[in-house]
Amino acid sequence: MGSTFGHLFRITTWGESHGGAVGVTVDGCPPNLDLSEADIQAELDRRRPGQSRVTTQRREADACEILSGVFEGKTLGSPILILVWNTDAKSEHYVPFRHIYRPSHADYAYDAKYGIRNWQGGGRASARETVGRVAAGAIAKKILRERFGTEIIGYVKQIHKLYADVDTDRVTQAQVEANIVRCPDAQCAEEMIAQIDWARRQGDSLGGVVELVARNVPVGLGDPVFDKLEADLAKAVMSLPASKGFEIGSGFAGTTLTGSEHNDPYEMRDGQVHTRTNNSGGIQGGISIGEPLVLRVAFKPTATINKTQETVTDQGEPTTLAAKGRHDPCVLPRAVPMVEAMVALVLADHYLRQQAQCLQ
Amino acid sequence: MGSTFGHLFRITTWGESHGGAVGVTVDGCPPNLDLSEADIQAELDRRRPGQSRVTTQRREADACEILSGVFEGKTLGSPILILVWNTDAKSEHYVPFRHIYRPSHADYAYDAKYGIRNWQGGGRASARETVGRVAAGAIAKKILRERFGTEIIGYVKQIHKLYADVDTDRVTQAQVEANIVRCPDAQCAEEMIAQIDWARRQGDSLGGVVELVARNVPVGLGDPVFDKLEADLAKAVMSLPASKGFEIGSGFAGTTLTGSEHNDPYEMRDGQVHTRTNNSGGIQGGISIGEPLVLRVAFKPTATINKTQETVTDQGEPTTLAAKGRHDPCVLPRAVPMVEAMVALVLADHYLRQQAQCLQ
Amino acid sequence: MGSTFGHLFRITTWGESHGGAVGVTVDGCPPNLDLSEADIQAELDRRRPGQSRVTTQRREADACEILSGVFEGKTLGSPILILVWNTDAKSEHYVPFRHIYRPSHADYAYDAKYGIRNWQGGGRASARETVGRVAAGAIAKKILRERFGTEIIGYVKQIHKLYADVDTDRVTQAQVEANIVRCPDAQCAEEMIAQIDWARRQGDSLGGVVELVARNVPVGLGDPVFDKLEADLAKAVMSLPASKGFEIGSGFAGTTLTGSEHNDPYEMRDGQVHTRTNNSGGIQGGISIGEPLVLRVAFKPTATINKTQETVTDQGEPTTLAAKGRHDPCVLPRAVPMVEAMVALVLADHYLRQQAQCLQ
Amino acid sequence: MGSTFGHLFRITTWGESHGGAVGVTVDGCPPNLDLSEADIQAELDRRRPGQSRVTTQRREADACEILSGVFEGKTLGSPILILVWNTDAKSEHYVPFRHIYRPSHADYAYDAKYGIRNWQGGGRASARETVGRVAAGAIAKKILRERFGTEIIGYVKQIHKLYADVDTDRVTQAQVEANIVRCPDAQCAEEMIAQIDWARRQGDSLGGVVELVARNVPVGLGDPVFDKLEADLAKAVMSLPASKGFEIGSGFAGTTLTGSEHNDPYEMRDGQVHTRTNNSGGIQGGISIGEPLVLRVAFKPTATINKTQETVTDQGEPTTLAAKGRHDPCVLPRAVPMVEAMVALVLADHYLRQQAQCLQ
Repeated sequence: MGSTFGHLFRITTWGESHGGAVGVTVDGCPPNLDLSEADIQAELDRRRPGQSRVTTQRREADACEILSGVFEGKTLGSPILILVWNTDAKSEHYVPFRHIYRPSHADYAYDAKYGIRNWQGGGRASARETVGRVAAGAIAKKILRERFGTEIIGYVKQIHKLYADVDTDRVTQAQVEANIVRCPDAQCAEEMIAQIDWARRQGDSLGGVVELVARNVPVGLGDPVFDKLEADLAKAVMSLPASKGFEIGSGFAGTTLTGSEHNDPYEMRDGQVHTRTNNSGGIQGGISIGEPLVLRVAFKPTATINKTQETVTDQGEPTTLAAKGRHDPCVLPRAVPMVEAMVALVLADHYLRQQAQCLQ
Repeated sequence: MGSTFGHLFRITTWGESHGGAVGVTVDGCPPNLDLSEADIQAELDRRRPGQSRVTTQRREADACEILSGVFEGKTLGSPILILVWNTDAKSEHYVPFRHIYRPSHADYAYDAKYGIRNWQGGGRASARETVGRVAAGAIAKKILRERFGTEIIGYVKQIHKLYADVDTDRVTQAQVEANIVRCPDAQCAEEMIAQIDWARRQGDSLGGVVELVARNVPVGLGDPVFDKLEADLAKAVMSLPASKGFEIGSGFAGTTLTGSEHNDPYEMRDGQVHTRTNNSGGIQGGISIGEPLVLRVAFKPTATINKTQETVTDQGEPTTLAAKGRHDPCVLPRAVPMVEAMVALVLADHYLRQQAQCLQ
Repeated sequence: MGSTFGHLFRITTWGESHGGAVGVTVDGCPPNLDLSEADIQAELDRRRPGQSRVTTQRREADACEILSGVFEGKTLGSPILILVWNTDAKSEHYVPFRHIYRPSHADYAYDAKYGIRNWQGGGRASARETVGRVAAGAIAKKILRERFGTEIIGYVKQIHKLYADVDTDRVTQAQVEANIVRCPDAQCAEEMIAQIDWARRQGDSLGGVVELVARNVPVGLGDPVFDKLEADLAKAVMSLPASKGFEIGSGFAGTTLTGSEHNDPYEMRDGQVHTRTNNSGGIQGGISIGEPLVLRVAFKPTATINKTQETVTDQGEPTTLAAKGRHDPCVLPRAVPMVEAMVALVLADHYLRQQAQCLQ
Repeated sequence: MGSTFGHLFRITTWGESHGGAVGVTVDGCPPNLDLSEADIQAELDRRRPGQSRVTTQRREADACEILSGVFEGKTLGSPILILVWNTDAKSEHYVPFRHIYRPSHADYAYDAKYGIRNWQGGGRASARETVGRVAAGAIAKKILRERFGTEIIGYVKQIHKLYADVDTDRVTQAQVEANIVRCPDAQCAEEMIAQIDWARRQGDSLGGVVELVARNVPVGLGDPVFDKLEADLAKAVMSLPASKGFEIGSGFAGTTLTGSEHNDPYEMRDGQVHTRTNNSGGIQGGISIGEPLVLRVAFKPTATINKTQETVTDQGEPTTLAAKGRHDPCVLPRAVPMVEAMVALVLADHYLRQQAQCLQ
């Protein structure tokens, strides 16, 4: 059941990296929403491999097709099936690793759990699975934007030891998309790109942090006690490949403050309750309070590298692995739309849940 | 639906801080497990308020009663209802705040979402809700311990700016329980206790980090792609009151490594595949691989403080709040059994899920 | 997970017939609903054993307590825990059957599935479990009545070979409650009572049919394709003990009509689309259309009888069983509030789901 | 969320009658099962329109493609996407009814609920949606057959006023498939075919009953109390288009027996507990006991007829409807594989659930 996410805005992704196709089924999208493939393609293009020199060079157009749930340009309220064919799956690249466990990949884990794995391109554990998430997230984003004017802006906050300077209150999507590394701090972005180029030449890879701010999030999203908004956000982003950490608002740094330093005083602004500071990250008691959501996600350096590594075969024999060919030296730029999609999916789901909870 | 957690080992907590009682319904516990109230009480005693001078001074015996699901000392496979009566709920303490939003508490959020709140003691947002989690977690722990010898050891890793030195491979439960702050680094523990005493005298509060190691976790737990083990763990602990961050294995620190530094080489030990290092934190591709799980949870400083704070009333009038009386200067020592419970619940649920997935 | 019902208005019942207590946790009840124990007690009194000479003579006051989720007379939006203590559980009655499988009871099935059973009073398989359903159903009924004026009227349509004559358009709750057998056809009711008295004297039992009409059901409830309203209603009532069949609208009898006879022509009445006939039973395409819901549920004769029966022991030895003492010669009168409760739970759940599905 | 069925063996169907394609996503299928498109095609061919003169004449090859979840002929444990393109969708046939509500179809209900509908071919309410169910059911059947030798045999028991004579203990799949009406009583089958031919010439349609027997069902399937096996079976088949009633074992007829007549005595056979009679229909206390499951499903006469009918337009104007062209005079022969598929899906899901419930 692990391929389904959400309760009322519910998606099921399917597809292996080197199977026939990948995609998603979206069940629970409200009817009468204008929706076309172009709405979805725009987000897929931000996730697409080969979009710039800092990403993997697999060449997939990732052109999506909507096979159900939309009629004469509008959603029907029935499941929306979105499909993307795999066209550049070079399975022969993976033949040498057929019986070798690539370190910090899912190869061993899948074999141990299932007794079988698709050894071509990582199968289901490949980042290619996120095609379906980003496609579904595009619909969620559209709902939130049209209904509430919600802006969901992710960006690269850190790569390796380079930290960008970003004002969460002012950052814009345009600033993010102004460079191929998706870092709104233009100067830091240049350094990041150089760093990624260096890593690629070394056959090595880099990790980092994606930060995300969501503005105009409606008040009242999130369900105490287990489905707190931050809990569902944490699960959402920690389900992305390579993520190792999550924090909301003040996060880990906030643990060194005292309560009197950390508490966000309330005040009235424009006739509305607001907090003066935002250590809460837009959520209190598990419920959105109308302040911007601010969260961060840590991504480890990509496991695929071209340096020689020690490992074992699926028969338990020690061996070494020296991969060749294209690899993704840094997933961060492409992780930005993935994180945005997951956040949008959580918010859309909780928006529908919130509607259900009041007698109207 | 936010009060239910888990798919196959499924719990529903219920109860407000100052209602008649709090408790939990556990559905999906396998039959024929030896279970008595003593098994549960042992864990509740670790969570109990008033257990030492570093916690809240609310005095609750928290004696549990099992009202269903157990017969002649064994589980029946039917829902287990565990109930704890509220006995020291001093609602009069809360009368002055009836119409005042306490900063960084859930008061405003609940009013905004529900249009009503139990203003006595935080109602459902109170840490008292975790009684049910810890009670259910005691059952999950017992299942894992009896079946796999799984050890789940949480401890205080950091309070405010004090960082303990703990070896995750060697730390024992006895070391953790050797002092009232539940920090296995005895020297650091003393400093932490002094720091908490200081905060209490100031009417202020402190945050920190709970670290947890789980050993003898069976291989194969966790479901790609959304129900990855780390995703469910993240949700579990981020649903605890006051948690602000989660990381697994190398976490945020790992983002500054390169892939060749971060990847965990495989090797054979005792005829079994193992990793030489454990940056993965025991999970690869969302699935446990038999190495120890290592995770950390950030808790903000407790929102209840006795210092004067600026805020607004539920009518939108600016006011100040100067609470008096008992407060919990640091939730960390009591957060340890809460984190352990949530981790145990996730593992038990995935253990049952794993059993379901293979044709036997 | 089998003890939970509903998606958004979600209940979990717990408790064995002879454990300490039985009850229910209701998660998802909207906030700000006026609710007291009296609302629930009224329905429990209709389900209560010993209420008349035609039911089981177990004497339970079935006085309910609300332990959470209600504050100052209103629901909070948090889980509502309702508890009823077992007071007349005479376990000694069951000692002779401890090792004997009572025919057409759940004894053997539970042993085969769980390897353990509470042999006192049927444990979880007892009709006593329905206390929680009826309590939760009382809340669902109240929501529907207050919001839509929905009337849910169940009654005994048939007992053994006696068939009542009831006009589904005109039958009232008062007519149903006018006699102890809950049959609105007064003359047939007398015959039914005599028949039950006869069965009791024989130490035998009788089955029958409960019919239910629900008026003022809002249009649009039910989700294609698997959660069609009739599908969820079927599951709801087929989960009641002793139910063997379900039909909606024309049901089995409708299979002998042709399409031109069976189709319900549309017409306008009061500016609203209506059907002239109601073979559909108020549902088309799985969705309520505003016509009265009409459904029927078959209940087998109660399995507990005092006649001598052939059976086997839990060691596989042939034996005979000759029970003594109180037995319930006909569950039908008490099944009426059970069926009503289940229907109300389905409607309330789909009402909340319907609210979630539209962009508002 | 209504397009998903099952908890552990979980399917989501998608697709409209006249959209691009229809299909299903199967999540939770165990790994290492041999599976090819041929396994699925065999069942789809039994459901296919145009397979004989007694069904609808829409001509669809219904050739399926597996796009994910299978690798080198074996299941991976990841979601299986099965797709069937729509090729004979003649939308022009539906243009005249674009604004007319066809009696006892879902047109009005969908408009009332969603404010939009795909008026081409019934959209999501079309029996074409069951392609996905039958495809997924083929996998469930295969699992049960290979693991337990489970035989699931459905057949036409009644059409209009013609009742077949079938021995549930002896009926074979070959007898069922020996004629185009899928009635194992060869003589009755001929009369049924003649009756359907008559109805087609009249432009009218017929209803009937599908009966199903499942042999070699493992003991212990079904979860008290809401997910009783008969409850889940009832929901499963009542979610099929045109179904109006369900009964298990003695069903409605059993209500006229006394308890002493109805109870199934236990006896030992081959060292195993069995019942001498099977009024229980293979289920007691909601749990399978190893006897054959026997159930029946009532299907109303198909709503599409060619006779003139009174109705209203979507603007509330009275009008008449006189459809022309192909229609399905009797859905019963094609309903057989649909009922079988739904039963198989319930059994496979409960088989996986049962595996999860025991400490192994």
